[in-house]
Amino acid sequence: MDSHVADPGYVAAVRDLLGVLAYGELTACLRMAGDGQLAPSLNAQAGMARLAAIDYRHHELLVERMEELGIDPQSAMQPFVVTFAGFHARTRPKSWIEGLMKAYIGDGIARDFYREMAGFVDAQTRAVMEIALDDAGAAEFVVRVIRDTIATDPSTAGRLALWGRRLLGEALSHAQAVAVERDALAALLMGGGGGLAEVGEMFARLQGRHMERMARLGLDS
Amino acid sequence: MDSHVADPGYVAAVRDLLGVLAYGELTACLRMAGDGQLAPSLNAQAGMARLAAIDYRHHELLVERMEELGIDPQSAMQPFVVTFAGFHARTRPKSWIEGLMKAYIGDGIARDFYREMAGFVDAQTRAVMEIALDDAGAAEFVVRVIRDTIATDPSTAGRLALWGRRLLGEALSHAQAVAVERDALAALLMGGGGGLAEVGEMFARLQGRHMERMARLGLDS
Repeated sequence: MDSHVADPGYVAAVRDLLGVLAYGELTACLRMAGDGQLAPSLNAQAGMARLAAIDYRHHELLVERMEELGIDPQSAMQPFVVTFAGFHARTRPKSWIEGLMKAYIGDGIARDFYREMAGFVDAQTRAVMEIALDDAGAAEFVVRVIRDTIATDPSTAGRLALWGRRLLGEALSHAQAVAVERDALAALLMGGGGGLAEVGEMFARLQGRHMERMARLGLDS
Repeated sequence: MDSHVADPGYVAAVRDLLGVLAYGELTACLRMAGDGQLAPSLNAQAGMARLAAIDYRHHELLVERMEELGIDPQSAMQPFVVTFAGFHARTRPKSWIEGLMKAYIGDGIARDFYREMAGFVDAQTRAVMEIALDDAGAAEFVVRVIRDTIATDPSTAGRLALWGRRLLGEALSHAQAVAVERDALAALLMGGGGGLAEVGEMFARLQGRHMERMARLGLDS
């Protein structure tokens, strides 16, 4: 047991962090599989179901870690339900390929954000977060499918580039909302070092990695 | 390696059987998770994601068994895509609870049907089928949620009873379509014993077990 665990402010931050991550994995699982119903080939359907099953496994690991720490998983996840619903309402995909791109871009930004946050927690919690943040080949699968789609129908490229920019904006405001609305998370983030300047740099890093992901798709960012 | 595996008629039947079962698990996974997006509580969402992940694991096991037998999983599943799409188009749930009931009733009938078919195949294939047919507490979870829903709003009982009868009819014609459209499956089923009379008895057994499931929900069948 880590000595941090005795500090109530720290426990509150870890509860928020594991809660938002566990809820994120749960909704990612449901969304990925839901979008998979519209996938045009058996191969894409099976690939998306596989990713959904991995998301669920990550959710389970995070729930187990919360239980180890004496955190109630349901009440840790609950505060994020409304924020996530808002994000998803503002980024409703109009097609299967937009859904897949949302998973790649949105989950990519979320994953980078959580990885930054993992720097602030104890080693055991970080280890669980790192397993949950392993994308298990998801990006590779999704990049291949999206590139194939663009190759088959080059007119989709412009639309998907726009969609990518839109997703970046919405995902960054979502990440800010998550970090700012929860005092304990904000304290964890700000307590880590240089305050607001450091947070600004973190958001710049998130944007940089987003541009790399867009480049992998062959799209302008 | 089983000696059966040398007989081309038998291999064709096993290909169909594993193909339809693997495709059924894949669509069950995607559908369960897709419906889970509409579930009204975190607890129900997490329960449905768990079931979806188990369905995917079953799908994977069946794909592995096909690969062991030198069967191409994609082409084994492909013939069932259209039949399943027809079944799902005819039984589109109007609400989250109808979706959950469709999973319980539809998957229950499918599971009983496949269990009957498992009696006709070699021990190794049967063992894989039996793991895939283990519902891993799904029925228990779903029965609890549906009973809670009816207790909270008793006016749903009549509608759900009607929906159950509709699902029985559609699932039985779907099972017949699957068995009859595929020569190899029909031969496996008929070759097992008493021909048409035996098949009639099998469908009577499926109906009997459906009535037990409806009784567990406290609904008229």
